[in-house]
Amino acid sequence: MTSTATPLQGYLSDNAAGASPQILAAMTAAAEGLAAPYGNDELSQSVRAKFADVFDHHVDVFPVCTGSAANGLALAALTPPWGAVLSHPNAHINNDEAGAPEFFTNGARSILVDGPDSKIDADLFRAAVGRRRGDVHSAQPSVVSLTQATESGSAYSLDELAELSSIAHEAGLRVHMDGARFANALIAIGATPAEMSWKAGVDILSFGATKNGAMTADAVISFDGRLATELQFRHKRAGQLTSKMRFQTAQLGAYLDDDLWLNNARHANDMATRLRDGLAGLPGVKILSNSGANILFCHFPDHLSADLRAQGYAFYGDRWEPGVVRFVTSFAHHSSDIDTLVSSVTELTR
Amino acid sequence: MTSTATPLQGYLSDNAAGASPQILAAMTAAAEGLAAPYGNDELSQSVRAKFADVFDHHVDVFPVCTGSAANGLALAALTPPWGAVLSHPNAHINNDEAGAPEFFTNGARSILVDGPDSKIDADLFRAAVGRRRGDVHSAQPSVVSLTQATESGSAYSLDELAELSSIAHEAGLRVHMDGARFANALIAIGATPAEMSWKAGVDILSFGATKNGAMTADAVISFDGRLATELQFRHKRAGQLTSKMRFQTAQLGAYLDDDLWLNNARHANDMATRLRDGLAGLPGVKILSNSGANILFCHFPDHLSADLRAQGYAFYGDRWEPGVVRFVTSFAHHSSDIDTLVSSVTELTR
Amino acid sequence: MTSTATPLQGYLSDNAAGASPQILAAMTAAAEGLAAPYGNDELSQSVRAKFADVFDHHVDVFPVCTGSAANGLALAALTPPWGAVLSHPNAHINNDEAGAPEFFTNGARSILVDGPDSKIDADLFRAAVGRRRGDVHSAQPSVVSLTQATESGSAYSLDELAELSSIAHEAGLRVHMDGARFANALIAIGATPAEMSWKAGVDILSFGATKNGAMTADAVISFDGRLATELQFRHKRAGQLTSKMRFQTAQLGAYLDDDLWLNNARHANDMATRLRDGLAGLPGVKILSNSGANILFCHFPDHLSADLRAQGYAFYGDRWEPGVVRFVTSFAHHSSDIDTLVSSVTELTR
Amino acid sequence: MTSTATPLQGYLSDNAAGASPQILAAMTAAAEGLAAPYGNDELSQSVRAKFADVFDHHVDVFPVCTGSAANGLALAALTPPWGAVLSHPNAHINNDEAGAPEFFTNGARSILVDGPDSKIDADLFRAAVGRRRGDVHSAQPSVVSLTQATESGSAYSLDELAELSSIAHEAGLRVHMDGARFANALIAIGATPAEMSWKAGVDILSFGATKNGAMTADAVISFDGRLATELQFRHKRAGQLTSKMRFQTAQLGAYLDDDLWLNNARHANDMATRLRDGLAGLPGVKILSNSGANILFCHFPDHLSADLRAQGYAFYGDRWEPGVVRFVTSFAHHSSDIDTLVSSVTELTR
Repeated sequence: MTSTATPLQGYLSDNAAGASPQILAAMTAAAEGLAAPYGNDELSQSVRAKFADVFDHHVDVFPVCTGSAANGLALAALTPPWGAVLSHPNAHINNDEAGAPEFFTNGARSILVDGPDSKIDADLFRAAVGRRRGDVHSAQPSVVSLTQATESGSAYSLDELAELSSIAHEAGLRVHMDGARFANALIAIGATPAEMSWKAGVDILSFGATKNGAMTADAVISFDGRLATELQFRHKRAGQLTSKMRFQTAQLGAYLDDDLWLNNARHANDMATRLRDGLAGLPGVKILSNSGANILFCHFPDHLSADLRAQGYAFYGDRWEPGVVRFVTSFAHHSSDIDTLVSSVTELTR
Repeated sequence: MTSTATPLQGYLSDNAAGASPQILAAMTAAAEGLAAPYGNDELSQSVRAKFADVFDHHVDVFPVCTGSAANGLALAALTPPWGAVLSHPNAHINNDEAGAPEFFTNGARSILVDGPDSKIDADLFRAAVGRRRGDVHSAQPSVVSLTQATESGSAYSLDELAELSSIAHEAGLRVHMDGARFANALIAIGATPAEMSWKAGVDILSFGATKNGAMTADAVISFDGRLATELQFRHKRAGQLTSKMRFQTAQLGAYLDDDLWLNNARHANDMATRLRDGLAGLPGVKILSNSGANILFCHFPDHLSADLRAQGYAFYGDRWEPGVVRFVTSFAHHSSDIDTLVSSVTELTR
Repeated sequence: MTSTATPLQGYLSDNAAGASPQILAAMTAAAEGLAAPYGNDELSQSVRAKFADVFDHHVDVFPVCTGSAANGLALAALTPPWGAVLSHPNAHINNDEAGAPEFFTNGARSILVDGPDSKIDADLFRAAVGRRRGDVHSAQPSVVSLTQATESGSAYSLDELAELSSIAHEAGLRVHMDGARFANALIAIGATPAEMSWKAGVDILSFGATKNGAMTADAVISFDGRLATELQFRHKRAGQLTSKMRFQTAQLGAYLDDDLWLNNARHANDMATRLRDGLAGLPGVKILSNSGANILFCHFPDHLSADLRAQGYAFYGDRWEPGVVRFVTSFAHHSSDIDTLVSSVTELTR
Repeated sequence: MTSTATPLQGYLSDNAAGASPQILAAMTAAAEGLAAPYGNDELSQSVRAKFADVFDHHVDVFPVCTGSAANGLALAALTPPWGAVLSHPNAHINNDEAGAPEFFTNGARSILVDGPDSKIDADLFRAAVGRRRGDVHSAQPSVVSLTQATESGSAYSLDELAELSSIAHEAGLRVHMDGARFANALIAIGATPAEMSWKAGVDILSFGATKNGAMTADAVISFDGRLATELQFRHKRAGQLTSKMRFQTAQLGAYLDDDLWLNNARHANDMATRLRDGLAGLPGVKILSNSGANILFCHFPDHLSADLRAQGYAFYGDRWEPGVVRFVTSFAHHSSDIDTLVSSVTELTR
């Protein structure tokens, strides 16, 4: 895949897309004039205030350049080194960050808690939080990381979030949400930012913008003011405090303005639904997920994947059970892209 | 200082400037279309090749979002945790990174080696590298970090770099260069990138672009191919491997193209020289540095600083001996800005 | 359980026993006179030479005060922070060290590989070592830790060790052996120290003495001379290099002298066999392990455990499936202790 | 120096001595019978109670096998990773622990505060604690480590301790005392354990016993109950929680019993005084310290050191200014040893 590829071809990940025009416009504006460094500029201050409005709560906002950094910083603030981080086996922090959680937390242990649809099962979680609690010989469950939306494109309902948070807090654990696709989940379950974060018991949120229209801007959003000082130093010390922060907050501000983030996410989700509806019922094609978010898993008959790739389509297919393929849609796909893909599959499965 | 401030007012740091138009244009172009993530896109590949051309050497290039991250990653690759990092007391890694070197290196010790003009003295360095070598009770000198240009605006000559590197390598230490103002130093001493890096014994360079026209793009440049795998994992694990890397490499590419980086640095340095020449000889004003780079230290008579600030000028003045002030110029200053400042000082010292 | 308890009562762990008379005599001798500190004394030097004799190989020996420290130091020398440590879910490093491996390795990831009898299954291991090799997004399998004898009292055969080591080395992993009960395993499988360590592919051994007659003396034994310097600094830096090392090496020397370690282990193993033979066939009692080492797992009928505890016996029984109990024998048990226990169980199950 | 050397010869360090007979007797007693592991035995419990009596305060006691481990654990409990540890340039944590503080604290920074007689100067300290407080770019002064007695054999007076603690606490720093030679200092300044620890503002004490009659037993003594849980996990995780803890607490108990520790320290101090008095006034000999503790620094005329060493005396002399030598006395020296040394010097300087 190259930078000359068309959106038609790209379903590998939503991180293959470029940037929304509004984001670019904000960067253009930010490139003018002088600004105080390290987030002391007016723009950064106003964006922090905007986050408080959006979440209807006091927040401490720390822009970062990757979701891995957001997750690592958040987890480090929520567990001591002798703690354990509980998460689903499919979580990004387990599979795709090369040990970043261990690095940022100074060696907290990873403990996996399974469940269907890439969501942590409440009963398994209840058992896990109490295991060897207070036993000096064992790393202590200290924080649970919930991915919303999950790597499978599913999303926890508000009730599910509330139940898991409640189990966590009663057992003395803190709650982290990996929201690399936070906006897609918001749309998928029809919740407000407040409902899906602090009202659901989330202590710190990794707020993703990059996959949904921004360039390189995510953020740690903390709802617990007591963690602000610690996060501030961890953020600096990890090399995440940029001098020209306005180039990150410009992106985040434009992302929140005029519901760009929600509109982008709604569109991306719709594209996945359109794809699902288009593929459903085709001979040999089996829809495996019905997520509402922007990821679609299917089972394809023999040779279909190879035939599609031969036509230039890009998507992952060899990471799961044989025949299972994944399509990720983004704000950058057009309905016509989806329709073309559906036509191609229809043709090939006729 | 706010984003509506004029360049006239800002001499606090070169990180207050915005971005060069060429950088913005590159970002605009990068915002279009799809691209493979994590640096596998064509643009990122071509920029890596461009760095090899510029340095006339094999290089491994790791874009990062801050200079602190660049320094931390570079040092981590050059010292074991039980090693010591030698640097000048004025070095950014000592004073301005909140312990980032200790974080990235997993606890290597900081050892300071003094010298005039913020440059490490060769004799003191020679003594320091051998201190308690092989003694299991003592952290082992493992890497020296040379800042070029220094925090005072001075720059090591090629001979000075070669001497320090030679002492380091003979004693088994590696050499890191903190090049947050690498381009300014290149211009100041009239050297080529190759001469001022690997030919002078530098193993890894923190290559700064942000202060000299980019938005948020610096890079770790390693001249030692054996460190590539380690750096790759450290870079990922520290949350510095961006999915949309093209938005960093677009900046770095435009920075190198058509000598933008050298032209920007030359202009910034010239502005400092113009300021020095303008202030020299004014009653009570004493020029303290004659660096050639884009930082000017002076001694001001009583009340002058306060009077200037009352007019809206911004510069640091209370961090050093009483009366000592610092002006940092950047690519964004105009000759007329400097002339206005000189006029103001002239007026106030009359 | 208190210090006035008799051996009759104690089957919780072999760490409840005191010390062999020979160990005490060595400590008494070491308490006299002066000695050079930090292992530079003659006694420590001679004990290091003794280890080389016993293992018939060059060894670097680092006395430590706990098995957790031995494991942590060994693993740290065998994996970079971005590596992964593979071990069995039952391994002590997973369950009983509160994250010591993560602490010592600066955050290497733990990956579990299952198998029957607390031993890693070769096929599962073969799959695990290759998973996402070279993928920068994933912690890299770097070292496997084999527990010999295992926490269940089983022991790998020489063939099993060789197969696992071969898989590990071919995939670029190093091999660590947690030998907290190394002597018990030696006796159980009838091997020589060399055969069960470096000849079987072990790179570093955590050599346990404490559970088998010593007071507080274990050691890291490295068969790879290239790791000596690194281990030396890690050992010091972790607060494990004692000034009066002779008080540790005195124990280790006496432990090796006159086959004390082998005799103690043989006796402990025999006591477990005697217990197994005595309990086999009793109504409702089911022998679950037939290890040869000094740990016996059984399934007890209802109430038997409670009744035995009421008589003062101490053993673990609530950590596994209902009804499963564990007895650990040591050098300090007498045949008559075992016979008394067997009689008690016989009486209670009649 | 070998284990057959006589006390006459050894003045290198007090860690060259063996063990007091009472310590050995306690170890002998502890070697008998069974005991609950990990400090749950009666002996360990009683020794913890004994420490509370001795210090007249609630204490949490964590036996460790080295002073470096004690210091590392204490500092880790008193500073976050982004904090700074302030100590005197001569402190053991700076010079002789190969970066153990950085390892245990996960990378806190070391900041040096000078002063005469190896004691931190109050004015310099006052300036240091406030430096860049709250500045996110700078590691935050978080704990001061006071060595009592110092490496020079001097001891802080109670007033000096109170002043430094007061400055520390007012600035939000915690206070650690490195008491590797705590007993020698107690005797030197004539204070009670309570006066010289928590009453003087000490939060955690590294309590040394090894140098003063024990074999391998030091302890972290915390006066702040809120730190108990954290210390417990750090202690375990660092591989310092021994299974047969009674072999450490036996030493510590005997050390405290019948004032053994105070008597040993008084004797060691007296031996240094006797040596000082004997050497004072000899031609060319200059007494450099008058500490009261068990370390004596002198300046020797040319050739005297070499001549003494030729007679078999062992002491350090090439670590400081030319001609400066150090003699360390211990509980194991006899008055006659000192007299013989004095005679030798007298003879050689005649």
